[in-house]
Amino acid sequence: MADATGELPFDELLDAVDSRKRILLDYLLKERFVQRFRPGHIREAAYSYLMGGGKSLRPAVTMLACGALGGDELQALPVAAAIEIYHTWTLVHDDVIDRDDTRRGQPTVHRDFTRRAAEEFGWATVEAEHYGMTIAMLAGDVQQSWAWSLLFEAHLERGLSAEIVLRLAQELASEVTPLLVEGEALDVQYSGRARQLDEELVLDMLWKKTGALYEFAGRAGAAVALNDADANRPEVQAIARFGSLCGIAFQIQDDILGIIGDAGQLGKPVGSDIREGKSTLLMLKALERADGRQREQLLRTLGDAAASADDIASVSALMRELGVIRYAQNISHRYVNEALAHLNMLPDNDYRRLLTLWAEYLIAREF
Amino acid sequence: MADATGELPFDELLDAVDSRKRILLDYLLKERFVQRFRPGHIREAAYSYLMGGGKSLRPAVTMLACGALGGDELQALPVAAAIEIYHTWTLVHDDVIDRDDTRRGQPTVHRDFTRRAAEEFGWATVEAEHYGMTIAMLAGDVQQSWAWSLLFEAHLERGLSAEIVLRLAQELASEVTPLLVEGEALDVQYSGRARQLDEELVLDMLWKKTGALYEFAGRAGAAVALNDADANRPEVQAIARFGSLCGIAFQIQDDILGIIGDAGQLGKPVGSDIREGKSTLLMLKALERADGRQREQLLRTLGDAAASADDIASVSALMRELGVIRYAQNISHRYVNEALAHLNMLPDNDYRRLLTLWAEYLIAREF
Repeated sequence: MADATGELPFDELLDAVDSRKRILLDYLLKERFVQRFRPGHIREAAYSYLMGGGKSLRPAVTMLACGALGGDELQALPVAAAIEIYHTWTLVHDDVIDRDDTRRGQPTVHRDFTRRAAEEFGWATVEAEHYGMTIAMLAGDVQQSWAWSLLFEAHLERGLSAEIVLRLAQELASEVTPLLVEGEALDVQYSGRARQLDEELVLDMLWKKTGALYEFAGRAGAAVALNDADANRPEVQAIARFGSLCGIAFQIQDDILGIIGDAGQLGKPVGSDIREGKSTLLMLKALERADGRQREQLLRTLGDAAASADDIASVSALMRELGVIRYAQNISHRYVNEALAHLNMLPDNDYRRLLTLWAEYLIAREF
Repeated sequence: MADATGELPFDELLDAVDSRKRILLDYLLKERFVQRFRPGHIREAAYSYLMGGGKSLRPAVTMLACGALGGDELQALPVAAAIEIYHTWTLVHDDVIDRDDTRRGQPTVHRDFTRRAAEEFGWATVEAEHYGMTIAMLAGDVQQSWAWSLLFEAHLERGLSAEIVLRLAQELASEVTPLLVEGEALDVQYSGRARQLDEELVLDMLWKKTGALYEFAGRAGAAVALNDADANRPEVQAIARFGSLCGIAFQIQDDILGIIGDAGQLGKPVGSDIREGKSTLLMLKALERADGRQREQLLRTLGDAAASADDIASVSALMRELGVIRYAQNISHRYVNEALAHLNMLPDNDYRRLLTLWAEYLIAREF
């Protein structure tokens, strides 16, 4: 496995992901969806992140998994779209929770509508901020329902059996959402408590926050291909496990890029996890390896919302010095290697090759 | 039709509603649901309003509508439960949006968890408030998914056909949620703009915010009874129209009680609509009927978050003087009378009699 972009044919993968994203956007921009969202601010908020240049990695895995098991990946399109919109509502709400100002180089939804309430309505700061939060909350709410309606379309418009749709929907509603909400709540509760946690707790939180939805994205594609929602079939279990492990690796890479990434490429400030006091794997390990003086430096910056770029750069340098960047990279590589072992149980075809690249890309990506 | 509690046998209605609420709670407290919600704060938040003494009027109409059309109302239980939980997530989020401190005499979810972050984690005010908002946002999110999973249970556990469940689910996802979110967003955008609005705009907003879900509650009960999701059958249209009109009447009565109700009985302060600058039907009409001096008094208090109980009492007295309380009551009575005309198209039975009482109760209730 390669550990740097460029050594693997990621261009082919990125083309494959991009062509699927275009199909996805065409579908999501259909008039029957667009006209559903009112008033104008809700519509713009509901579409904002979709139009904002994300790579749509989750729906890609659904469609590729469907293809890998011999299915028609276009039949999986509404399911893949449901997963993308489902992910989007969590981003909109999480950005409020994490008080993030930018995403992919653009203002987050709540920030954007704070500005617009001030400009369009002439509202004062406190009122405008509350309006921004309100639009983000409501947009995320209506996006969650949109995700459900896309899943139902898989049956009502695309002929996937009602039974399979309901089984998948029930899994998403009764298992994935509770896990995801738990992961997000734990992430918040863990803030500022890195010293009281261990790696196992943090990895469990990452799995809930990110792995569970990637797992579902893989499994749903498999269910469409096999026309069967039985989660116990070996090939379905292999794809699900593949997604789950890749999801955790993806999140660890996100945490790494949040420290050593390039702000311009990332489209958001570096170090926000540190300013928010997040208990990432990196921070846990850094605190464990630090001597007294280093620990003091880490704890002084951790959770300091006003930490300067210099403070962040010092923590980042210290993390490199302590070897925790490399440590986290090793863990994410281990997850992807394990994921690929599961993938190798599937038939060898072009889709499987793309899924292999997709998994390797997750941890090689620089933004 | 009576216009005061006591002239109609509401005790019988309240017993009927209460016995259905007990069945509903038994169902919602099943271990498979309770254990789904983690960590503890999310679980407590998800159950908070359910345990808080609401009357559960929406699921009652679903079950009664099912019975009225000859169905087994227990078969409608998961659908009724889905509607109750669906309503609950909107309450949790709306309370954040409206910055309400109490509901039914208890702290709202975001207020409660603000206090607990301060007490349990020792967090400072700003952090604790953000935590309260975070828990309310996430609890509402997981409640929305809970509502969907209850709807799916109607098929997976109770044998309602998958086709009917998916048709109902699609209606809720693609029609009701967008309307409800639009109504809530308009309510916020209309704040402080009573002078620029007309009655038609406000009634349309009330229908979106409240009527659409009541309409769905009726129609869903009918679909279960008839084992048919065809919304065009005359008896289904009658029940849907009944629900829709009752929903608007319910919301107008809510607005009236928000001005002239008893804080103790309501479980929340009187006058919060005025303090928030809400453009209610009452305020619109009051501004229209007021002379220059009265208009000045209304506009001084409207949107003043710090308005005293005396200020509110003066506005309330002025509204009575201008006859706008009576005016709004007449409108809600007209809606209920029209609703009852639709109800009379259904077979005459005990369920229909209870639905009649239910509709009359909506506008006779004092809290």
